[in-house]
Parts: sequence; structure tokens; C-alpha cells
Amino acid sequence: MNFASDNWAGASERVISALAEAARRGGPAYGADDRTKAVERRFAEIFERDVAVFLVASGTAANALGLSAYARPGGVTFCHREAHILVDEAGASEFFGGGVKVVGLDGEGGKIAPETLAMAMAKFPEGVVHHGQPIAVSLTQITELGTAYMPAEVAALAEVARTRGAAVHMDGARFAGAVASLGVAPADMTWRAGVDVLSFGATKNGCIAAEAVVFFNPAHARDFGFARQRAGQGFSKNWFIAAQFDAYLKDDHWLDLARHANEMGRRLAAAIEKSKPGRLAIEPAANEVFAVLKKIADARLRASGAVYHPWLADSVPADRRPGADEVLVRLVTTWQTPQEDIDRFAAVLSAA
Amino acid sequence: MNFASDNWAGASERVISALAEAARRGGPAYGADDRTKAVERRFAEIFERDVAVFLVASGTAANALGLSAYARPGGVTFCHREAHILVDEAGASEFFGGGVKVVGLDGEGGKIAPETLAMAMAKFPEGVVHHGQPIAVSLTQITELGTAYMPAEVAALAEVARTRGAAVHMDGARFAGAVASLGVAPADMTWRAGVDVLSFGATKNGCIAAEAVVFFNPAHARDFGFARQRAGQGFSKNWFIAAQFDAYLKDDHWLDLARHANEMGRRLAAAIEKSKPGRLAIEPAANEVFAVLKKIADARLRASGAVYHPWLADSVPADRRPGADEVLVRLVTTWQTPQEDIDRFAAVLSAA
Amino acid sequence: MNFASDNWAGASERVISALAEAARRGGPAYGADDRTKAVERRFAEIFERDVAVFLVASGTAANALGLSAYARPGGVTFCHREAHILVDEAGASEFFGGGVKVVGLDGEGGKIAPETLAMAMAKFPEGVVHHGQPIAVSLTQITELGTAYMPAEVAALAEVARTRGAAVHMDGARFAGAVASLGVAPADMTWRAGVDVLSFGATKNGCIAAEAVVFFNPAHARDFGFARQRAGQGFSKNWFIAAQFDAYLKDDHWLDLARHANEMGRRLAAAIEKSKPGRLAIEPAANEVFAVLKKIADARLRASGAVYHPWLADSVPADRRPGADEVLVRLVTTWQTPQEDIDRFAAVLSAA
Amino acid sequence: MNFASDNWAGASERVISALAEAARRGGPAYGADDRTKAVERRFAEIFERDVAVFLVASGTAANALGLSAYARPGGVTFCHREAHILVDEAGASEFFGGGVKVVGLDGEGGKIAPETLAMAMAKFPEGVVHHGQPIAVSLTQITELGTAYMPAEVAALAEVARTRGAAVHMDGARFAGAVASLGVAPADMTWRAGVDVLSFGATKNGCIAAEAVVFFNPAHARDFGFARQRAGQGFSKNWFIAAQFDAYLKDDHWLDLARHANEMGRRLAAAIEKSKPGRLAIEPAANEVFAVLKKIADARLRASGAVYHPWLADSVPADRRPGADEVLVRLVTTWQTPQEDIDRFAAVLSAA
Repeated sequence: MNFASDNWAGASERVISALAEAARRGGPAYGADDRTKAVERRFAEIFERDVAVFLVASGTAANALGLSAYARPGGVTFCHREAHILVDEAGASEFFGGGVKVVGLDGEGGKIAPETLAMAMAKFPEGVVHHGQPIAVSLTQITELGTAYMPAEVAALAEVARTRGAAVHMDGARFAGAVASLGVAPADMTWRAGVDVLSFGATKNGCIAAEAVVFFNPAHARDFGFARQRAGQGFSKNWFIAAQFDAYLKDDHWLDLARHANEMGRRLAAAIEKSKPGRLAIEPAANEVFAVLKKIADARLRASGAVYHPWLADSVPADRRPGADEVLVRLVTTWQTPQEDIDRFAAVLSAA
Repeated sequence: MNFASDNWAGASERVISALAEAARRGGPAYGADDRTKAVERRFAEIFERDVAVFLVASGTAANALGLSAYARPGGVTFCHREAHILVDEAGASEFFGGGVKVVGLDGEGGKIAPETLAMAMAKFPEGVVHHGQPIAVSLTQITELGTAYMPAEVAALAEVARTRGAAVHMDGARFAGAVASLGVAPADMTWRAGVDVLSFGATKNGCIAAEAVVFFNPAHARDFGFARQRAGQGFSKNWFIAAQFDAYLKDDHWLDLARHANEMGRRLAAAIEKSKPGRLAIEPAANEVFAVLKKIADARLRASGAVYHPWLADSVPADRRPGADEVLVRLVTTWQTPQEDIDRFAAVLSAA
Repeated sequence: MNFASDNWAGASERVISALAEAARRGGPAYGADDRTKAVERRFAEIFERDVAVFLVASGTAANALGLSAYARPGGVTFCHREAHILVDEAGASEFFGGGVKVVGLDGEGGKIAPETLAMAMAKFPEGVVHHGQPIAVSLTQITELGTAYMPAEVAALAEVARTRGAAVHMDGARFAGAVASLGVAPADMTWRAGVDVLSFGATKNGCIAAEAVVFFNPAHARDFGFARQRAGQGFSKNWFIAAQFDAYLKDDHWLDLARHANEMGRRLAAAIEKSKPGRLAIEPAANEVFAVLKKIADARLRASGAVYHPWLADSVPADRRPGADEVLVRLVTTWQTPQEDIDRFAAVLSAA
Repeated sequence: MNFASDNWAGASERVISALAEAARRGGPAYGADDRTKAVERRFAEIFERDVAVFLVASGTAANALGLSAYARPGGVTFCHREAHILVDEAGASEFFGGGVKVVGLDGEGGKIAPETLAMAMAKFPEGVVHHGQPIAVSLTQITELGTAYMPAEVAALAEVARTRGAAVHMDGARFAGAVASLGVAPADMTWRAGVDVLSFGATKNGCIAAEAVVFFNPAHARDFGFARQRAGQGFSKNWFIAAQFDAYLKDDHWLDLARHANEMGRRLAAAIEKSKPGRLAIEPAANEVFAVLKKIADARLRASGAVYHPWLADSVPADRRPGADEVLVRLVTTWQTPQEDIDRFAAVLSAA
């Protein structure tokens, strides 16, 4: 019953095989191999347009390097106040952006409202050199609180960003989960809604270390090859990422993996909702379930071997926060989560 | 007959198996897994002392992050003028060092002489804020020209560095090759000779993407965990590097791999030396062979399928440079190079 | 009736004379002149200890460079949410710190409470590489809201900072005003209370472009000469800053100038407080007066030629904020403000 | 007899008066004053076109910030190997450029030849991410060795730069001297010859701390206001620079000052050339005279109170270098140098 993180899962067998096979073969260095090129083409198909794609090995690198393409002096990037780029990446976006600011915004369920963004940007009026200038908005899809932006919501935020010439970045660490959950075309969720650059995550969903930075306007990627190499993310054996993506993207494997994780999330949420000592704090869209548990139930679950993280109460709406005898927790299902874990969790919970 | 680069080789079967096994298992994220810890301990054994070890996925990251621990305003790092950190890493050391300079020095066979270092440092006199201050010396072992520093040579350079408070960094992209070639204890080649921080490379010698930054004085690593995470080199599935190193370091596999590569290099060099249309430009210490070939022989070899890179003539001593009908080339053998490739190369060459 | 900013004032006659005299003379470049050395010694007297002093030409440079001495990877600097370094310096502290974060804290009247600092630091637990590490706390003295920290308050904050190894920086853009207002020895307000580095401002108080970075532990300044030169703040005709400071610090001229500004502030505040259509929003400690005015009075004052800035209502405690027919404003007096301006302002205000 | 540096001179009386007058007056902060605007317009007249002008207080800031507008990942700036930006600015260009490289080129008399630039750029072939990409060429006018580029020479270098999309920067620390010496229109020496951005120096020629960054294509300056503020070079009392420039540029004062310095340089050179124990090492174009002196004459001159700096012998052509009993020296005349100093120097020299 490990619901700690989708980072704890291993890799899918198809991904492992592809990687092992590539590693036996070797090949031209630094992305000059055929597989890297094939993967780059595959992204163009998935997004129904020409894209500039760059493989990297970590989500932090994908986010920070992708955003760095829009860095300018005095630059300010806006994101949700619980965004991974703000809270969990050791200042990578500030660093790779040459000292830009990353400003966290409030927003229910991990989602930024257009008015919130507009108000935050208004604190940096056009041309006032003292305060700085908006350069980007970063949206996380699936959000850090397990919800999803609908394409129209992305478009509304992008429209606000455009009023100030700010780019739109999507941290898609759980992009597959969003596509699987919303049943929306990748193109609709991204560039058609105004997204400029996407961190297309695969690591959390069955790969080992595989992320892609996808620029929807290849002109924005003019310097990216240099930026990636300088960051130590241009790998001599670049095929090790390409092979993972090759298997991951083939025959919709990525969506199948995400569908499983989401389905397990849905069942886990349902089990909690119908239990006595548990309730949902946020309606989950994919594989992250934020729940309020009675402390006694929490103790029982942990005693039974369930692993998951407590969460900060102020992440959820005031009327959903835990009471004195309750605790807010995050439970994450993965492509690997067995149905039995859900059943067992449900059984322990309802018995508590 | 692929002698293009040790970057083109795949990975050893033991490394692949270890990685696949780890990937099936998954585990705690960000290096909290047992295997990462075991690997860190293994390095202490190999170097016969406490060390602070940080796994990263590329040599550029290892070098630039390792050096960044010594960055200071106005800082100047010295290295050979053909050093990878100067020529081939897109300015990573300057970038991660916050804008430090990297100054290339002349030196026969890829090796810096102590007097050359002393003279170069003298251009940055103590306390003259206009010019800058020495912060580090970076030595490549095996050098970019296929030679090796003896421990006494490292010690002599370290002594010069110490006079100015500069750290000593070793780019050990081919560290295994050096240990295998010189038959010297890793400790003697590094900290006992005055090295502060080592990029311990594994990627070129049978791994996929596995490098370790080894600080011999753990106090120097105070901030390194943050620096690595911020660089996007702190991986959620960090076990993917640890598993490679686990297999690589077990039972001296790393040295066996390097011994093979070196032996192939030795035989290749011998074949060239005794051939008519070829001669050695530099006496090789490990798996990089710099040779001068008659153009006609070069053409025959390429026509027979041999793959290797031409090299800049001024890398080698004046009296060894190619004549008008000759060309300087670099040939790299690997842990995977079959004896038959050497034999075939020799046959084509002597027939030319 | 110009109460817009102490930045709008000219320079004191003594300062102008000293500068003109120095400019006629010229002299050795880059701070090697006698006057620079004399000024450096003068700071040691003022602070009753050895200090390392570096003259620079702007407050932004003083703050950002001073803080940069404590920058570390993943570093986080804490300050008030209205602090100049956070809001008004175009990201200089982030930039010179190599991408550190600057986090703004709530605090009544522009002052940070120790508990607030402790709670904010707790979000960056020791050794958690994802979140970052506290490196510094920056206090503004006189604060951006016109109040002053007592030495004991500085000490309490410094104690919290020390628990995490964070440095204490004081943005003393209005340091003279604080010394004049509190009647406290400069040493008591700074290093004896735990301050590590001070931006000693003179520009706002009768100089033209003159700030000093004062390190109370000279060891912290090890690299500062290089950092200043690299920042373009090491001036060839460095005597132009030294001459200003020479006149400014002689015979307590700096304190006389500040006393006048403070006295004018006191009278202005008193006039507002006793007026009908005005009231103080914050009790001023020096030369910045935050007041709530009836809109009609505000209009009359502006029509009469009074110049000052509106201010964000949420800067002041909830119970002091302007009502619907009121406006919050900031009025700044200077060393140059004539008594008549205060009288005239008072007359217009009470007539409104 | 002070020929140490044009940095040692004071300021011209007109400049001092203008500054004192402005300092008595004060005015709107951060460049919103009328004088700053008038100065900006004056530059448009001087250069016969719209320009974007930014005042800063030091040459290092002007150079490094001006170049930073062209910084890109993996960027490489080329300059002469004795260029101030490479040797004397503590790495400012690397720092403000976010870690770019600055590569020094050989070139007789401080001047880069187009072929040298082309060859140096060829080491960074288009699109090879490992090596980096050319971003700028920086030319110093008057060069560090006292010579001047003719407009056609600038144009030839600019043409080479254009082939790779690199910007052309001119370090005009002694720009007035160049205009006065060559009798060429400022426009012809800069943008008409392909210069993109100019550091227009005034500090060395009668001002105190006054430099202007002039962009000939205002679009290049899009972010410069933010960059300048972030660098601590956007001054609250910005009029202190504007006032200097106002007096400096009025009625060709700047050219008169430079003409005097150049004339003194010419006479000094002539005196050396016709002396027995001295000869010119380089034909001077303006106010820097590089000469070879017999050691005995050097000793006599110093004993008589002459102040000047020895120089590195390898700065000058091999056939002009000092012999065993000689020394290479740099002598700098200024707008302030009295004719008597020249006469006295000549007398001592010829008597030696």
C-alpha cells in the first residue's frame, strides 16, 4: 500500500526492454542517433504540428530550462504558490533564468484564476524598471493538488499572459494523466490554448529518467540546444532517454499507464468518500488524492503498512480543512498500483 | 571498426542487468534508497577515506558542479587548452560558476607543466581586483590527448595551486583507464597528490549515464546537495545511477572494462607504429591513440569502414605533426572493442 | 511642498564643496587615494571596531552586493514584503546572489517579528535540498513604513537567524535617520545586536551617490573587492564617493542632516494628527510619514502644490486603513525641507 | 609629470560647475529629470540618428551591461587579448552575460584583423552545441595600445561578425580621443561602420563618473532599463551623470578636451622619437604613448618625478621590443596635462 509518490514506482517492462536493447547496441552520441530523431518526430504527431523537442533527464531540468528560454532582466514568472517550480526545485528556475523571480499565487485546488494572475501582473506595471517585468506564467497540469485545467481555463490564463507579453509554460510532470483524464487532444490542452512550452513528463508514469521540453513555436528554441548542453543535460548516450520515450509513446502505452493510475485514483477516492472516517478534501482529476482522515483511521492505516504523506492544511479550501481530530493527507496512485492495494486500504479505512 | 569515441559504445551487460533489476523494483526517491547509500560507501573503500559522493548523470554536470563548489567572484580556473571543460561543455563551468573565467594553458601531450601553471597564475596577482583571482586548476586524467599524469606530476601541480589557495579538480571522465594503465591506487592519484574534487566517470567505460562527484574533504561539499538539485541533477529515481555504479564498481568490473579498452589501445598503437603508412603522434597511456597516417592509408581505412575523427595538428609536438601527405587522427578503443577490429585495421593499414 | 521622496533632494553644500574640491585635484585611481583610506578609518571610529568598508554609488548595489557575500546554492533571503530589496531593485539581490530567492514576510509597520521569521525559515528545513536553505535576513532601518527597529528587536531577529546560520543584513538607506531618531550608538544598532553587514546610506540624506557596504566581520569581505569591481562599482575616480563621505561624516554633519529631516517629519506628523481631515496611519520614527487624508483634503493639498505619493492601503494595520472617502499617502521630509513647507501644508490641511 | 593614467586626472571646471549646480537643485529621481532627457537627445544629434541612451557611472558597467544585451547560452565574445573587458574588469562581461566566454585574440598594436576574427569564430561552427556560439565582437577605440581603428577597419570586422550573427560592441572609453584624432564623424566611426552598441566614455576625458551606453538600434535596448536597474546603475540622483554629460557635450567641450590630450600625446611622442635614449614602440593615435626607453633614462625620469607604468614587452611587435638595457613603458597624457610637463620630460630624457 505505497501511495507515497509516483516517483517511487519502477519503470514499465516495455520501457526497461527498450532501454536494455538500446544499451546493448550503443550508437552515435549526443542525440545524433536514429531513435532520438524518431522520437522527435513522434512528438510532432502527438501534437499535430511542428515542434522543437529536447530530451532531458529530470523534470527540474525540463521546467527550469524551458522557462529560461523566456528569461529577461528583471523577469518575473508567476505560478501557483504550491507549484513544484517554486517550492521543490531548489531555485532552479531562478538560477537558470539568471536571477529571475518566481512569484507564487493563491488559487483554489492548485489552480490559478485569471483575475488572480491579472492582479499579480498589475504589480509590475509596464516599463517600471524598479519592480520588474512579467516574463512567464507556469501552469502545472495535473496540478500539485490533483486537479486539472480545462483547455478553456488554460486559454483564459494565456490571454491574460499575452496582455503583458508573458510566455505560457506548462509543467506537465503528469501530462499523461491529464490527457487520460480529460480525454482532450494534447494539442487542445497546449498550443491551441496558448501554451508556448511544455515539460512533457514521463518519469512519474513508467519511465526512469525521461522528460521532454516541447516548444510549440520552434523559433523560441533558437538557443535551447546550447542551454541544454551547458546545463549538463545534453547526454553523450542520449539514446537512453530516447529509448524510454520510444517505448513510452508507442501504441499509446503512455496513455494506458496513465489510465491505470487514474482509475486506481478514482477507486481510492471513491472508497474514501464512502467511508466513515475519511472524506475528500479536493475532487481528484487523476492519480493524486487529497483526503481528510480521522487521526485514528490514519494511525490504523499506517499500522497496516500504508505509506503516504501528510499535507499542509492550508492547501485546501477553508471548509474542507481537517478538524482537530483529523489530518490532511496526499495519496498517489501509479501505473503500477495494484487493485488489491486499493481494496486493502478501503477495508482498513472502513474498519477504523 | 568504430574508433570514433568511447561515447558510442553501449553499456556492459552487468550494468544493464543491474539497471533493469532496479527499474523493476523502484524505491524511495531522491537518493534515499539503500543502493545509493551502498554506492556512496563503496567510494569510501575505493579511496581509502571518508568522501562526500554525489551521483549525477553527465560528465559536464560532474565537472561544472564540482568546480562550482570553489567559485568566487572574479574567479579564474586553469586547465589545458584542449580540456573538455574549456572546449566541449558549452561554457558549463563558466555558467555554474556564476561567470568565472576558464583559462586554457599550453602543454605538451595534453598535460600542464607546473611552471606553465605558475606563470599563468602570476597574471592574476594576489589582491588585484581588476584581473581576478585563481580559484581552481582542472586536470584531465586520462588527458584529452591520451596521456596520463603520474601522481608526482599531480602533486607538483597541486603544490603550485596551493600557493594561491586554488582547488585542484580532476576531470576523471576516463579515470578507470588511468588507474588501469598506471597501476596506481585511486587514493594516490587523487587526494594523496592534492586533488580536492574528482569527476569519477563511468559513462565512457561501460555505463549509460553515470558520473560521480567525489569530494575528498567533505566540508567542501557543504552546499553541493543544493547545487545538484538546483541543476536538475538530483533525480527522483536516483537509483538508476546507483544501480549502474553498483554493478560497475563490484568485483573490479570497472577496472576489467578499462583494462580491455587499454589493451586494445595498446595493440592498435603497436600496429600503427610498426606499419609503414602510420606513426604515433603521442605515446598513448590508455585507450586514445593519436596517430599520423598517410592520406592514402586514411582513405583506404575509411573505405574499409573504419570510423574515427581527424584532429587538429597543433595538438601535437611540432616534430610529430603531419606532413603535406599526412593527416592527424584520433582513434578511441573501448571496453567493447573486439580484437578483430584491431586486426582488421592493422591489415588494411599495412596493405595501404 | 515637495514630500515625494528624499531622493528628490539635492546635496548638502558641504558635500558639494568636498566633491568639487576633490574633482579639481584628481588623484590615484580605484580607491588608492588618501581620502578613501581616511573614510574607511572613519567608519571604524563610528562603529567602534575594525570593519571592512567598501564604497559604492547606489543603494541597490550596496544591498545586493552586501547580500551576495552570503549567497549559496538554493539560498533564501528573508525580508519584509515591502522591503526595497524585494520590490524596488529589479531583482538585484536575486541576480547578484546567482539566483537566490528573496521571500517577503508580513509584519506590522514594516517590521518583521521574530516568530514570523522563525515560521518562514521552518518552511526550509535543514538539509531538505528541494526547498532551499536560509542564507540571510535583511532588515530595513528606518523601515519602508517609517518605523525603526530597536536594538533589542534586531537582536531577537538575529538570534532566530543564527539558529539556521543565516546572516543578518541591514538596509540602512536611512541609517542616519535611525541613529538620530533612536539616539542609539551605531554599534548598538548593528554588530552588537548581531548585524553582519550594513548598507550605510548617504544618498538620501544630503549626498549625491554615496553608499557604503560595512562588514563587521572583515573575514566575510574576503571576496568583496572582486565582487564590487565585477559589478562595475569599483570606480576609477573613487574619490568622488570618498569626498562625499568625508564631508558627510565630518563633525556629525550626517546626524545634523538627519535630525533636521526627522524634526520636519515630527512636525508634519503632529500637524496631521491634530488636523480634522487627517490622521496618522503609522507612528513615524523619522522622516517618512504615512497618513490617511480625507479625499477632499488630499485634493486641496495637491491643488496647493503639495507633492507626495499615494500608498497601498494594505501596508497599514486593518484598523488604520483609509475609509471610502479617504486615501493613504506617504510624505517624506528631507534634510532640505523648509519649516515653511510644513506650516503651509498644515494650513491647507486644517482649512480643508 | 604624471603620465600614469587618464584616470588620475580630476574633472574639467565646466563639468564640476554643472554637477555642483545640479546638486544644489535636486530634482525628479531615476532619470525623470529634464537634464537627463536633454542629454539623451544630445546623443541623437551627435550620432545623427535615433539612439537609445543609458547613462551609467563606470566603464566596466557600460561595457558589461551593453554586451549583456547580446548574451545567449553558450555565447562567446571576441576581443583583443589586451582588451579592458578581458583583462581589467574582474570578469564583469562574463558575469553580466550569465557565464559567457570572452576570448582574447592576437593583433598588432591592439587591433584585431578581420582574418583573425574569422579564424577564431570558425572554432565555433554554426550549431555545434559543445563549443558555443559567437555573440559579439568588442573593439576598443582608442585601443589599449593607443592606436585607432579607421571606419573601414571597423566595417571589415563588422562584416565578419555579421556572417555569424554576432553583434559589434565598441568600448569607447577614449571615444572622444578617437573622434578628435581621426576627424571622423561619430556616426561614421560607429553605426555606419556596423557598430551596434557603444560605451561612450567621458570619465577619462574630464568627467568624474559618467559613461553612456548607446544602442544604435533601439530595439536592442528592449530590456536594458531593467538590466541597468538590476545592476545598481540606475541612480536615484541620475542627474549627477546627466549634469556631467550636459557640460561635457556642450559646445564641443568633449572634443576640445580630447584635442588637448591628443596634442600633448603627439608632442610627447615627438620628443621621445627625436631623443637618443627613447623610441616609440607603437605609433600613437591619441593620448597613449608606448615607448621604449633606455633603462638609465627611465631611472632619470622617475628620479625627476615622472610617473608612468611599465608595460608587457609582448604587447608590441617583435622588432620593436625592448632590448636588455631597455624597458617598455606606457605614458598617458590627459586633457589636463600641461605643456610644461612635456617639455620637462623631454629635457630630462634628452639629457639622459
